[in-house]
Amino acid sequence: MNKALEQLKKIDAEVKTLRGVQASLDWDQHVYMPERGVHDRSEQSALLASIVHAKDTNPEIGNLLDKLGATDENPLGSEELSDDDRRLVRAIYREFKQSTRLPGELVEKIARTTSVAQSVWADARRKSDFALFRPHLEQIVDLQLEVADRLGYEEHPYDALLDQYEPDMTSADVAKVFRELREGLVPLVRKIASARQVDGGVLGKHFPAAGQEAFGRKVLEAMHFDMTRGRLDTSVHPFTTSLGGDDVRLTTRYDETYFPTALFGTIHEGGHGLYELGFKREYHGSRLADAASLGIHESMSRFWENVVGRGRQFWHHFFPIFKAQFPEQLSGVDLETFYKAVNLVEPSLIRVEADEVTYSLHIILRFELERMLIGKELKVADLPEAWREQSQDLLGIVPNNDANGVLQDIHWSGGAIGYFPTYALGNVYGLQFVSRLKKDMPDMENRIRNGELAPIKAWLDEHIHGPGRSRTPKELCEEVTGEPMSARYFIEYLNTKYTDIYDL
Amino acid sequence: MNKALEQLKKIDAEVKTLRGVQASLDWDQHVYMPERGVHDRSEQSALLASIVHAKDTNPEIGNLLDKLGATDENPLGSEELSDDDRRLVRAIYREFKQSTRLPGELVEKIARTTSVAQSVWADARRKSDFALFRPHLEQIVDLQLEVADRLGYEEHPYDALLDQYEPDMTSADVAKVFRELREGLVPLVRKIASARQVDGGVLGKHFPAAGQEAFGRKVLEAMHFDMTRGRLDTSVHPFTTSLGGDDVRLTTRYDETYFPTALFGTIHEGGHGLYELGFKREYHGSRLADAASLGIHESMSRFWENVVGRGRQFWHHFFPIFKAQFPEQLSGVDLETFYKAVNLVEPSLIRVEADEVTYSLHIILRFELERMLIGKELKVADLPEAWREQSQDLLGIVPNNDANGVLQDIHWSGGAIGYFPTYALGNVYGLQFVSRLKKDMPDMENRIRNGELAPIKAWLDEHIHGPGRSRTPKELCEEVTGEPMSARYFIEYLNTKYTDIYDL
Repeated sequence: MNKALEQLKKIDAEVKTLRGVQASLDWDQHVYMPERGVHDRSEQSALLASIVHAKDTNPEIGNLLDKLGATDENPLGSEELSDDDRRLVRAIYREFKQSTRLPGELVEKIARTTSVAQSVWADARRKSDFALFRPHLEQIVDLQLEVADRLGYEEHPYDALLDQYEPDMTSADVAKVFRELREGLVPLVRKIASARQVDGGVLGKHFPAAGQEAFGRKVLEAMHFDMTRGRLDTSVHPFTTSLGGDDVRLTTRYDETYFPTALFGTIHEGGHGLYELGFKREYHGSRLADAASLGIHESMSRFWENVVGRGRQFWHHFFPIFKAQFPEQLSGVDLETFYKAVNLVEPSLIRVEADEVTYSLHIILRFELERMLIGKELKVADLPEAWREQSQDLLGIVPNNDANGVLQDIHWSGGAIGYFPTYALGNVYGLQFVSRLKKDMPDMENRIRNGELAPIKAWLDEHIHGPGRSRTPKELCEEVTGEPMSARYFIEYLNTKYTDIYDL
Repeated sequence: MNKALEQLKKIDAEVKTLRGVQASLDWDQHVYMPERGVHDRSEQSALLASIVHAKDTNPEIGNLLDKLGATDENPLGSEELSDDDRRLVRAIYREFKQSTRLPGELVEKIARTTSVAQSVWADARRKSDFALFRPHLEQIVDLQLEVADRLGYEEHPYDALLDQYEPDMTSADVAKVFRELREGLVPLVRKIASARQVDGGVLGKHFPAAGQEAFGRKVLEAMHFDMTRGRLDTSVHPFTTSLGGDDVRLTTRYDETYFPTALFGTIHEGGHGLYELGFKREYHGSRLADAASLGIHESMSRFWENVVGRGRQFWHHFFPIFKAQFPEQLSGVDLETFYKAVNLVEPSLIRVEADEVTYSLHIILRFELERMLIGKELKVADLPEAWREQSQDLLGIVPNNDANGVLQDIHWSGGAIGYFPTYALGNVYGLQFVSRLKKDMPDMENRIRNGELAPIKAWLDEHIHGPGRSRTPKELCEEVTGEPMSARYFIEYLNTKYTDIYDL
């Protein structure tokens, strides 16, 4: 048994190392690669993907997992193993199952189909013509149904797809939480819409990129994001990636005519980055040094971006610093006006531009529709109309065209069905974690008010970051908060915060 | 035969692609990697090296080469193959032989020995204490003798080592050329030393890095270094590397108190970069898209750096532009003074700081000594004394300590014996190529005077860059100049140029 474990750990370490190489190539491609390097890079990425795939699906892994007693019923394997070793066995079992249950031809067919579909989608969005994209999305839905069948599920085929992004969570779990969310958010949005509006004038001022970067770096420093173990660069689409356990890279994007993009984007990526840098050191080099799920990852980025970064106490400390950086732009703007401006709520059509309150409604809309597509309760042909109906129900507005509606996101064209919920789950997990954090640190708000973010990071390292992939999201949520996932905390938080801001 | 060729090309393409990945990791490590990413990076590099080594030494390559008729006597293989296919077979045969003739244990032993030796060398240099380094260098010489025996040679074991860096060249060839060089250079240096000195005052002025970079980019642009296929960044030790046939990255280093470092360094790396970007497109993705040898590579960098970049005509065009960039620093400095200052000759102890005239003498010194070490005509223990003697003979000066003498270069501590000659061969090849270039383009100097560097690059693309590794250095030299390598052109060039500058 020990020998099998040792062999499995060796394979795992190699896979982890090669994923760092892949991350390095991807990072470079999006940050520094010269334009015409793309052909060579795609050859490199494809070859590396095939090497990693061969290692991921090496039948020897199956034999070793057998020897260690891992099964669908008992993915943790033999009880003779240590707790952490069992968790590693579970993580490997899970990925081995996923990568071996999908035959190579299916994976290739998906790659080919989505490669075409993505460029058709881009064209369809430009022309705002869903009919162009429709046959491709039909193919994608069929292929994802096949994926679901191959991966297996108990109740709903959507569960199999969701499980790829949010382990051990079913669509029934998500639906329950999203029902709470919907019931809490829709009335709040309506109330805000009929309240007196806040002054967002400062958002339209011109903020030079260099100053934005200087300030963003100050905030990352206060968050104790360690620049000897990471970097901040710029890219068209901001992201965070780990080239290694001590090499985590953030990117951001500076819009000189709308400073919140980079400001909150940098804090958001900083939250992802602290997670990636916070895995227990003994997990480094193994796949336990990874996020518990995308939802948990998003809980960290959104916690820092919204709960901390869009909080009144944060600006109590940082507004004078921001103002020193931009004295002209902020001349005559006081803390209260600024705080309200960066928390302006307005139902809008585009998800990526949505505020903290309406954002989750955009996600609920997508979840409802994609679950119906996969459940064969909705035809692709009827999707644009269904989108408009849901948009009216949830946001109270209807897109004027498909580009601003059903065609706005890239995800489906890439075959990612079951991914969207993780964005909203992040909000829910985040505030549930905060409920525990505030018990452990009753003076949290005061610390933020003094710019002391380090104790918060330390708490997250211990409770959320450290455990990494050793816990499933459900386990983590129960361990940290003592109860299953609930949208209650997030809704309470929004109600309190926005009742104050909008004087509801 | 066709099938074997196809299979061989497939393996070759994979090896080439993985080398691009390795280059990407190395580049990142020296340019952007955060400090503490080094542990993860070394795991990645080591794993990738083992994957590449397995591909390089795959016995299937041996079988395929057999089928294609490649042997030591006829490395080009069957005459039924096309010319280019035969050249590819030769290039693969050569590398396969080199990587399979050295047993894994020997390679590992060298890696372990040099890893220790490099840090001991750094310490010994700091303390200027050769005795510390001596036992390690003795081990290295013994190991390199074993390498030579394994690789095989006809006359001198040094030939086997040299052949790794400069294919098909023997130490007798090098000795012949270096004899010509020595006979030409030593009297020239003596004459310059007793001539009236030039005014180098401008070299000591302060030049801010940003302006240096702006000017360097202008020169690269004039050289038609294509920034959609490459980049310029900074690193501690400047280098050029290819991440792919359309992705060539240069680095430079800005010293604000000595501008020639970055100025001529950028042009030097630009010359390497043009070579790497200039391989025939049909060779891309195969190992023919590589330099003919290190000597040829160096011929391109030194041609641009010295013949073009330190030439009077170049500054006729660029001095006003440089002066516009640095009006204060260059106030009162005229073109002639500037031109002479950047061509100042002075025998010095340190190779990397040497001027164009004395540089090759530093190389001859090292070549003589390392050939004697490998030929067992000189003991490591006697090396410092031998260094001092050679230094007196060649440069007319003697190092005051070992740090400024035998301990100054890192190469031997890394096991690189046989590498040094390629630096001086670059000077020799370069001026020999220029002799042909001037026949094809009699108005070359005039074009440079007008800032028109593109036709020169085009000529190099056709005659030197394009052929890449399809030619051995000897073949290339004969094809381009119609004669074997000769130091005559380089010596003539130096005599003419410095007779003028120093009014000899």
